[in-house]
Amino acid sequence: MKNEMWSGRFSAASDKLLEEFNVSLHVDKFLFQEDIQGSIAHASMLENCGILTKEELKAIVKALNQIKLEIEQGQFIFDLKDEDIHMAIEKRLSQIIGSEIGGKLHTARSRNDQVATDFKLYTKKAHVDLILLLKELIQTILSHAKIHKNTIMPSFTHLQHAQIVSFSFYILAYAFMFMRDIKRLQNSLELADFSPLGSCACAGTSYKTDRNFSAKILGFKNIMPNAMDGVSDRDFALDLLYDIALIFTHTSRLCEEMILFSSSEFGFLSISDSFSTGSSIMPQKKNPDVCELIRGKTGRVYGNLISLLTTMKALPLAYNKDMQEDKEALFDSVKTAKESLIILNALLKEVQVNKENMAQACKKGHLLATDLADYLVNEKNIPFRKAHFIVGSVVAQAEKDKIDISQIKDLSKINPIFDQKAMKCLNFEHSLNAKQSEGSSSVASVEKQIQILENFIASL
Amino acid sequence: MKNEMWSGRFSAASDKLLEEFNVSLHVDKFLFQEDIQGSIAHASMLENCGILTKEELKAIVKALNQIKLEIEQGQFIFDLKDEDIHMAIEKRLSQIIGSEIGGKLHTARSRNDQVATDFKLYTKKAHVDLILLLKELIQTILSHAKIHKNTIMPSFTHLQHAQIVSFSFYILAYAFMFMRDIKRLQNSLELADFSPLGSCACAGTSYKTDRNFSAKILGFKNIMPNAMDGVSDRDFALDLLYDIALIFTHTSRLCEEMILFSSSEFGFLSISDSFSTGSSIMPQKKNPDVCELIRGKTGRVYGNLISLLTTMKALPLAYNKDMQEDKEALFDSVKTAKESLIILNALLKEVQVNKENMAQACKKGHLLATDLADYLVNEKNIPFRKAHFIVGSVVAQAEKDKIDISQIKDLSKINPIFDQKAMKCLNFEHSLNAKQSEGSSSVASVEKQIQILENFIASL
Amino acid sequence: MKNEMWSGRFSAASDKLLEEFNVSLHVDKFLFQEDIQGSIAHASMLENCGILTKEELKAIVKALNQIKLEIEQGQFIFDLKDEDIHMAIEKRLSQIIGSEIGGKLHTARSRNDQVATDFKLYTKKAHVDLILLLKELIQTILSHAKIHKNTIMPSFTHLQHAQIVSFSFYILAYAFMFMRDIKRLQNSLELADFSPLGSCACAGTSYKTDRNFSAKILGFKNIMPNAMDGVSDRDFALDLLYDIALIFTHTSRLCEEMILFSSSEFGFLSISDSFSTGSSIMPQKKNPDVCELIRGKTGRVYGNLISLLTTMKALPLAYNKDMQEDKEALFDSVKTAKESLIILNALLKEVQVNKENMAQACKKGHLLATDLADYLVNEKNIPFRKAHFIVGSVVAQAEKDKIDISQIKDLSKINPIFDQKAMKCLNFEHSLNAKQSEGSSSVASVEKQIQILENFIASL
Amino acid sequence: MKNEMWSGRFSAASDKLLEEFNVSLHVDKFLFQEDIQGSIAHASMLENCGILTKEELKAIVKALNQIKLEIEQGQFIFDLKDEDIHMAIEKRLSQIIGSEIGGKLHTARSRNDQVATDFKLYTKKAHVDLILLLKELIQTILSHAKIHKNTIMPSFTHLQHAQIVSFSFYILAYAFMFMRDIKRLQNSLELADFSPLGSCACAGTSYKTDRNFSAKILGFKNIMPNAMDGVSDRDFALDLLYDIALIFTHTSRLCEEMILFSSSEFGFLSISDSFSTGSSIMPQKKNPDVCELIRGKTGRVYGNLISLLTTMKALPLAYNKDMQEDKEALFDSVKTAKESLIILNALLKEVQVNKENMAQACKKGHLLATDLADYLVNEKNIPFRKAHFIVGSVVAQAEKDKIDISQIKDLSKINPIFDQKAMKCLNFEHSLNAKQSEGSSSVASVEKQIQILENFIASL
Repeated sequence: MKNEMWSGRFSAASDKLLEEFNVSLHVDKFLFQEDIQGSIAHASMLENCGILTKEELKAIVKALNQIKLEIEQGQFIFDLKDEDIHMAIEKRLSQIIGSEIGGKLHTARSRNDQVATDFKLYTKKAHVDLILLLKELIQTILSHAKIHKNTIMPSFTHLQHAQIVSFSFYILAYAFMFMRDIKRLQNSLELADFSPLGSCACAGTSYKTDRNFSAKILGFKNIMPNAMDGVSDRDFALDLLYDIALIFTHTSRLCEEMILFSSSEFGFLSISDSFSTGSSIMPQKKNPDVCELIRGKTGRVYGNLISLLTTMKALPLAYNKDMQEDKEALFDSVKTAKESLIILNALLKEVQVNKENMAQACKKGHLLATDLADYLVNEKNIPFRKAHFIVGSVVAQAEKDKIDISQIKDLSKINPIFDQKAMKCLNFEHSLNAKQSEGSSSVASVEKQIQILENFIASL
Repeated sequence: MKNEMWSGRFSAASDKLLEEFNVSLHVDKFLFQEDIQGSIAHASMLENCGILTKEELKAIVKALNQIKLEIEQGQFIFDLKDEDIHMAIEKRLSQIIGSEIGGKLHTARSRNDQVATDFKLYTKKAHVDLILLLKELIQTILSHAKIHKNTIMPSFTHLQHAQIVSFSFYILAYAFMFMRDIKRLQNSLELADFSPLGSCACAGTSYKTDRNFSAKILGFKNIMPNAMDGVSDRDFALDLLYDIALIFTHTSRLCEEMILFSSSEFGFLSISDSFSTGSSIMPQKKNPDVCELIRGKTGRVYGNLISLLTTMKALPLAYNKDMQEDKEALFDSVKTAKESLIILNALLKEVQVNKENMAQACKKGHLLATDLADYLVNEKNIPFRKAHFIVGSVVAQAEKDKIDISQIKDLSKINPIFDQKAMKCLNFEHSLNAKQSEGSSSVASVEKQIQILENFIASL
Repeated sequence: MKNEMWSGRFSAASDKLLEEFNVSLHVDKFLFQEDIQGSIAHASMLENCGILTKEELKAIVKALNQIKLEIEQGQFIFDLKDEDIHMAIEKRLSQIIGSEIGGKLHTARSRNDQVATDFKLYTKKAHVDLILLLKELIQTILSHAKIHKNTIMPSFTHLQHAQIVSFSFYILAYAFMFMRDIKRLQNSLELADFSPLGSCACAGTSYKTDRNFSAKILGFKNIMPNAMDGVSDRDFALDLLYDIALIFTHTSRLCEEMILFSSSEFGFLSISDSFSTGSSIMPQKKNPDVCELIRGKTGRVYGNLISLLTTMKALPLAYNKDMQEDKEALFDSVKTAKESLIILNALLKEVQVNKENMAQACKKGHLLATDLADYLVNEKNIPFRKAHFIVGSVVAQAEKDKIDISQIKDLSKINPIFDQKAMKCLNFEHSLNAKQSEGSSSVASVEKQIQILENFIASL
Repeated sequence: MKNEMWSGRFSAASDKLLEEFNVSLHVDKFLFQEDIQGSIAHASMLENCGILTKEELKAIVKALNQIKLEIEQGQFIFDLKDEDIHMAIEKRLSQIIGSEIGGKLHTARSRNDQVATDFKLYTKKAHVDLILLLKELIQTILSHAKIHKNTIMPSFTHLQHAQIVSFSFYILAYAFMFMRDIKRLQNSLELADFSPLGSCACAGTSYKTDRNFSAKILGFKNIMPNAMDGVSDRDFALDLLYDIALIFTHTSRLCEEMILFSSSEFGFLSISDSFSTGSSIMPQKKNPDVCELIRGKTGRVYGNLISLLTTMKALPLAYNKDMQEDKEALFDSVKTAKESLIILNALLKEVQVNKENMAQACKKGHLLATDLADYLVNEKNIPFRKAHFIVGSVVAQAEKDKIDISQIKDLSKINPIFDQKAMKCLNFEHSLNAKQSEGSSSVASVEKQIQILENFIASL
């Protein structure tokens, strides 16, 4: 392998590369809103503490709002030499109002606490967005759950038929997962609600500042009590990365089941055409692409979590440049989560429940065997193990006759212990509603579950 | 490679292996206390609902307590054929009180909800233990913090000297991390405080049970509202795995610094002999083994988190055997965390702070430059950027003279703008206490931080 | 929360804990064979270089073999105070032959290179075992592949029916994955084949040793060329952890399909009773527990990989105690992989292929549409896109008639372009064998694939 | 929380989002070169097999080259409706040469094998680039190693001083890590060198194609032997992700040491100004940003590995849309690795070795104790343990005198067993070169190590 020429190419590239390598502008420019919001709060505090005059504050705020508009309208010129969004905005500020006043904005803060503040503001907003998206998803599930309380289907353990449940009961399991996801986000949000602004480089400042003042403006409940922790901490980003990882643990399970249930073997669900891709010559082929993508993206959000965990491992205090790697992982997970939840919600809204196929599937696997045993225990006072033995022989007979026990015409012919009342146990709807325990699949219990979720939704 | 014989060995092994492969007894036997606790609660509920008689309950409880004693005293014979701890205990129960009564215990529950309940009880207890251990660690940090409010040391950013801080201020940064860890655990505990008991296989039961009754006995605040979610959920284990991962993000940073600071190059701290290992011929060699081990174990707890996240990815509902893999990861992380926190606490208690070395290190890196600039801004009303320029030239002069600026005898000789009052800025203690902002390194601020932590500790 | 008493418990525990915390004996005692093997090689080298006498060597070797026997027979007393297996064996050696001679064994080596050597010997052996197990697995797949060359089944993309293939063709895909796994292991083994023995603490030794001599005895092809790298390197463990992770990527896919295909919805495969667990009252319920467990264990081996990667991140040279954490992760992954491959192989041997169900499934999804289009292109010289358009209308007609196109009686009635010869395209076996490209599903191609695998197996 | 309006916003967004969600064009457009390269090879094969005419091939090749130019020159219009780069190019092809001929290009292939081929071509090229970059890095290390064979420094274990080594010996440890990285890449490249082209959807094709023909044109050594494996396999991407993860395990260790060694406490190395960032008022503050960034990016590449491993876990065969997630992870790791290696190489070239500081550090920690003990064993025939005991007392005396043993004037005064010749052991250079074992730190051994590396480099 000769690499002389090529080596030259790389060498030449290294200078330009070096220039770019340190730069985070291409990533953190998405924080421009938070940066301007943070700077306005900081300036307001400085004015309140007598460090800036009213006029200086007014000029700074006006210019910052102008910069925000410039960026939003695509007129702002991003220059890699500014290194990051904070420098870019500060430079532009001094261009607009002069460096005499512009230069005062950075009094009593440093880039270390500034970047922590911006990133935390972003993180807090992401929490709120995700909570609302999960809320909508629960609402969509509830709308299905209200309709399908009597739509029977087999439940599965080990992907084998287990017992009769309703589609409502089944889909509500996911609503409760997403309810926990919301609570987890609320908890993380509370832990993140401490402003680092004013921690400066890592030791605070000798200016007479009022950190609670700026914190309040920014909507923080409290301030970080220790400046070194204030600039070293990235728990808030890790917490959100984890919360999103867990959301995808849940959505990946739901998507796996959507894919299974819409296969031609199951046929329980049909995904709307607009969420599937077809094939030019196989008209029945509706690939559940969206579900596959969301399931696949679980890897991405798990990876982002492990990425920042690894970066933060064993880092000495306080700020280290390693921490610049925090943003891309979180930005990507937040974007992925928001988009996936929006799409999943839209897809779920339009999913078609194939009642007949589900009902048909209930006729496989002797799903009613447990009901029959429970009948003997409850009505005939037969001990549980003995009851199971008796039902076992009923199933064996059905197997011999190559039918499901639900198709048995007369139970008493198999075993005289069964009277006519026992025949009701071979009815699927009876099986569904015989469940009396809280949290079970009966219509009454499902209605209670819906109520719990609606109360929760209303409390948000 | 000839593998005939060897192949035979493996084939022969496979039968025995198969027998062992499904078995979880060697892992879940550590849940025996939780299993017996759960069974007693379940039996009490059955009696309360009229499904068991008072006498039956009494017999069951007595026998279960006997089994607990047998296990604790090492008299219980674990038989792999029992597959798991739940079966092992139930079998022994029937040996003691007969299968007629013993067989009734499993009424209105299944192994799916039983194992979820046991595992959740274990998880809840682990939360409590970890909170207490973190509390002790904070207390140890506080005892150092109270002593070293005036012990100056350089702070670091990018592992380069930044500004003067106190050892109290520095070490308190970690106390606030551990305070967040406690809050995070409290949040997870709250999310986990829903009893799955009575969810049965996945759809509830037709017996008239009272899930709130058993939940209350077991100390759960509430019940899982949906049975399918009740047996499919492992969020509580993942939450704790994450909480522990983050604890190690923090301890790995602390241990990294303990290792650095106890190197002969830094010399800030001396780790007690009992926590170091030496070398027979190098008497000064005190390897900080314990700190290295705790730092190294970060890998283990990160790995355990990714392990269960991977296992749960895309699993269809409800129970799948994959979920048997949940326990080892959590058991290992909990054990690792508890032991590491105990050891770290003991080590921290005895760590020796080498004040002189720290003070000596303050004389490198012109740590007081910022103070000098702030003086010009505050006292001479000189704009920030200009002040920095002036101080820059002071530093340049010091560099030329090969001294630190703290060693300058007369500032006015370098620049007449400095008067005699400016000389106080070259005093380290002055620098420490000049900080006025909340959360800063000044003694006053550090005392406030200590108060916050003590209030928090008292509230636990 | 009062924790006085409890705190006391922990404090009391910390001394004992500390004693145990540094100790690795409970983990590394499984390296006793490698340690003795390494010591014998080292002693032989010392004798060869004139550092030990023939008599000393003889005494050492005899005693080491005795120790090996003691451990194998359970007579060796492991004492936590020995800290690790290396110290435990060396202490026992001096008990047997006196410390005068016993103490000479450690000449010109240190624990740093000793532990690296032992661990590498273990790793190399694990490679060999895994290669043999994968070889057996391929052989089992081949035995199925030879039988089922004409057993048709639908292939899937997006879990939707795609085209007709044979079971042989399908299952051979996995054989080629495992073939790559073997090659990957062979590559890793080659990279690991450098002896670290004689690197000593990290800088080599002043004794006139012959590292190649001991390396040769131990079966290493070469020696680590730099002593510092020799004791700092754990690439070999990471490589094997990765290789195992990838094996489980493959087995998790296979197990996922075994679970799917043995569901009552698919019914393509039946897993032998001995590898399933049943239910007392649902005789048809055969839970594919073993497949679920192997799929679930993917989490474990992924976690072990990330565990050691994290531990090794940013570790300064040379040896650090963090590296003691290397063994458990690898031991666990190797054990998991060996057991899973043995069980999977046994299960695959006995899996029952339900030909009829597979054939039946071929009648869904118009699997032959592509064949029909290809016919028009090949035989009627019709452009590809136009051919597809024509076939599209055939499929549409079949849909209208609620049949699969394979059930069409007369194609020419739908479109006169189809002649009688076209009808052969509606035959599944024809479809299978019409494939002419290398690597396709035709019998001829499958036979070639079998040949490639058999040649590879023979070369091992 | 009111989210009516906001909800509306999301709903409105979902249609546009859905359109974008499936699209991979923004990611895979970077594969345009590989896609065109693959299409030309495929067309050439079709012509060779008589499926295309010479004229058709000529037209296709000409148009594809034109498209390549259009993309390279930024004239190509990417339209999200084309979904991916493959469709975008094919559509443009038909625009240029008409759909009659353009439509023939896709004969006997599908997007499944096309995307696998493109991605593999990209992966193969990335291997080659990385090997060359690692080669350059080794060359840079060699240039230092040739100069600093006698530049003494302390080696470290547990970050505590261990023994005297040279800077050459130390830095060569990394060269050998990178040498293994190259070998690992070569192995992965070999495993990846099988063309999937012609596997079609997953079962091959009925056209008489010649997969070896196109494979040869594309530079593949061989073809994937099974079409289903051909489209399902992503081992090659995982292998490269792992290889890069391991490169960063190594660079993170090097960067950690660069950061440590350039701290004011160590002062062993000075990083060139162009690779550091400073502070306006602290002229000595040179933050090793580049090293920190490379160390931090370890998280990113570990995360990318776990990301794709997770995505591939338990995916049924053959192609699933989840696999679309494969590219971003690999593109990011490859870009990160290439940039980091270029920058690290440039930085290493200019790093300044502070010989005096290193020599000064050797006077701490009694680094020569082992040498003294070895002297007694070798020259005075004193048993090893006794020798160590004697030296222990020498060290104790030095400790009492508050000097390092290297500063002892007369050893015989401490213990008469030492004669005048023993004094040479207290010389650092002697210590360095006393090492006789292969792979040790002596000049002779270092020269041999350099030779091994140069031979390796020459063989590339």
